[in-house]
Amino acid sequence: MSTDSLLKHLACSNCGSVFDHREIQTFCLTCNKPLLAVYDLEQAKKKLSKELFSNRLPNLWRYRELLPILEGKHIVSLGEGFTPLIPLSSLGRRLALPHVFVKDESQIPTGSFKARGLAVAVSKALELGIKRVAIPTAGNAGGALAAYAARAGIECFIFMPADVPRLNLIESQVCGARVTLVKGIISDCAKMIAERKAEMGWFDMSTLKEPYRLEGKKTMGWELAEQFEWTLPDVILYPTGGGTGLIGMWRAFSELAELGWISGSRPRMISVQSRGCDPITRAFGDGKTESEFYHNAQTLAAGLRVPKAFGDALILKAIRESGGVAISVSDDEILSAMKDMAQVEGIFMCPEGAATLAAMKRLKEEGEVNASDRIVLFNTATGLKYPEIWQ
Amino acid sequence: MSTDSLLKHLACSNCGSVFDHREIQTFCLTCNKPLLAVYDLEQAKKKLSKELFSNRLPNLWRYRELLPILEGKHIVSLGEGFTPLIPLSSLGRRLALPHVFVKDESQIPTGSFKARGLAVAVSKALELGIKRVAIPTAGNAGGALAAYAARAGIECFIFMPADVPRLNLIESQVCGARVTLVKGIISDCAKMIAERKAEMGWFDMSTLKEPYRLEGKKTMGWELAEQFEWTLPDVILYPTGGGTGLIGMWRAFSELAELGWISGSRPRMISVQSRGCDPITRAFGDGKTESEFYHNAQTLAAGLRVPKAFGDALILKAIRESGGVAISVSDDEILSAMKDMAQVEGIFMCPEGAATLAAMKRLKEEGEVNASDRIVLFNTATGLKYPEIWQ
Repeated sequence: MSTDSLLKHLACSNCGSVFDHREIQTFCLTCNKPLLAVYDLEQAKKKLSKELFSNRLPNLWRYRELLPILEGKHIVSLGEGFTPLIPLSSLGRRLALPHVFVKDESQIPTGSFKARGLAVAVSKALELGIKRVAIPTAGNAGGALAAYAARAGIECFIFMPADVPRLNLIESQVCGARVTLVKGIISDCAKMIAERKAEMGWFDMSTLKEPYRLEGKKTMGWELAEQFEWTLPDVILYPTGGGTGLIGMWRAFSELAELGWISGSRPRMISVQSRGCDPITRAFGDGKTESEFYHNAQTLAAGLRVPKAFGDALILKAIRESGGVAISVSDDEILSAMKDMAQVEGIFMCPEGAATLAAMKRLKEEGEVNASDRIVLFNTATGLKYPEIWQ
Repeated sequence: MSTDSLLKHLACSNCGSVFDHREIQTFCLTCNKPLLAVYDLEQAKKKLSKELFSNRLPNLWRYRELLPILEGKHIVSLGEGFTPLIPLSSLGRRLALPHVFVKDESQIPTGSFKARGLAVAVSKALELGIKRVAIPTAGNAGGALAAYAARAGIECFIFMPADVPRLNLIESQVCGARVTLVKGIISDCAKMIAERKAEMGWFDMSTLKEPYRLEGKKTMGWELAEQFEWTLPDVILYPTGGGTGLIGMWRAFSELAELGWISGSRPRMISVQSRGCDPITRAFGDGKTESEFYHNAQTLAAGLRVPKAFGDALILKAIRESGGVAISVSDDEILSAMKDMAQVEGIFMCPEGAATLAAMKRLKEEGEVNASDRIVLFNTATGLKYPEIWQ
């Protein structure tokens, strides 16, 4: 059965060249930049409604007309999406910020927001007849790809740092993926895949070198709009590794505006990184449109060890268009934020998620956010995945 | 604001004596048996509808009129409930059982179904003015209580076996609970609480010695009914430790029938235990109405190390009334089921959840379930909580 997807084509995020979505695509080889999915929003205006979406099951496929899968039988789903938006009344009171929420991406298959992108990307891979996939990962994307590939019957090869959080290795292996532990970080893993992929027949699922993970992540923006009753929050704090979620949400807000479903100003997008690896913060501070490779990345927030995001130009553009900023926090601030959040609000965050709380405290001190702002912190995974931190 | 709860009173599950829900209650001291919450279902028939529930947010509080909290301000929520029902088409094909589903209780706060019972119990504790709670736990209930108690501002004391899965200890401590590791298992933990609680001023949150965890667990039954479009599956396989979920679902089905929202036969309730601790299976096989204390309990499914459930009589009654059975599986079968489920369906189950898959295979071989049955397996927690199994 058709999903009634309104996908028209893919377009290069730099030169605008059009690519056919009915064939396997990667990124724009001319510009070396990501492709973006383009939907027929004129049709969408006629066919879609808020009520249509809201009456469907609470998972990301409720937005299926604005997702890239064409046939329902290709959807590979573990029930992902529509994660709760949890108010933080106690912390909010302490910080004099009464309208703070956590978008809790721990309550999702594989315990991390990576499930969104990989549910959609694996579904599309299945639709396009792809049989073998490979991914370089800081950890959680590996676990998510392993799960969805297993479910789709697609062979899965994962390259992760040798010092990856142990549970990322375990979840990938238990799901049957072939895992290679690499001395180095995600960029070293990516290099190994690039060298071997032609010979091995792997389709490369690297962040934004595959066009559809972005579409899965976009649904975080759609869900926020729906959960705020078709308005948008004032500020979103997002821990930026590869940055797909930040770019995706910014795309979602454009789609929503073009449909006329939201009005007024869009959220300020706050990119949060760890001081031990903050290429986006540096590029933002220096007024640059792209980031530089960050050498000797080191932080307890494993997911933030991304020394150069392939979508850096899109990340920086979204932050600036939104009137946001990019800031960095220390590992000590992250650890302290993890404890605060758990002890005051009962949410056992991942370190990447906790970085957003640390950043919000800083923004409050600097007067960058205030009591009237509706603020969303992204908890991108469950704290359960990081026992090493507490040993 | 009122929740419009229709709670009338509590009643002893044995003698029927009535207890006032506006006061703190525990269990029937005369019978030494659990109390059950009784709602005004005549009012419910007039005031409630399927549509009313279905139009609310996808969490367990959508059923609030049939939950025990009286004031909305006392609800302590992390967005728990309405977990996905995931079809198992590949495993189903292999086993010639085309209608098998997993109710995935990993996608919930704290990563386990214990969140349901403790969200409701902590909310009620807050409503009743309780300030300090204690719990004996095989692991996951400790993590869940720690989180909700932190959120409610209630002091929390947890007693768990010294060899508890490490992550249960970590999540409890990070959420600020005071944890005592006990040489022994959950029954030894319970003894320590019983000895000290008067002196320490603890309210005892032990399974079914507190009346409201059952009400939270009951919502699993309500959700199944709603997810099957107000019908019920034919068979439910449930891993029985304390058994609150099994009893709770059986209560939910009674409520649904009394409201006239379902008709026809109710599911066969299959209790699954590990051979290393299977007091319910033994009592069922011996035709007894209560279980005997199981000595030297040992199994990799930590949550099933419950040597004597306080609600054993209710568990056995529900199994028999439903036409179900109680069966045991080995740790080897559990481990093999964990791998099968992960590699074929992409679901990284907890060992307790995997026990239900092992049991279903056995029931299929014995002709106890067949291709026309709609079967639900309960995955009661995320596999992420059990890295020890893979070391």
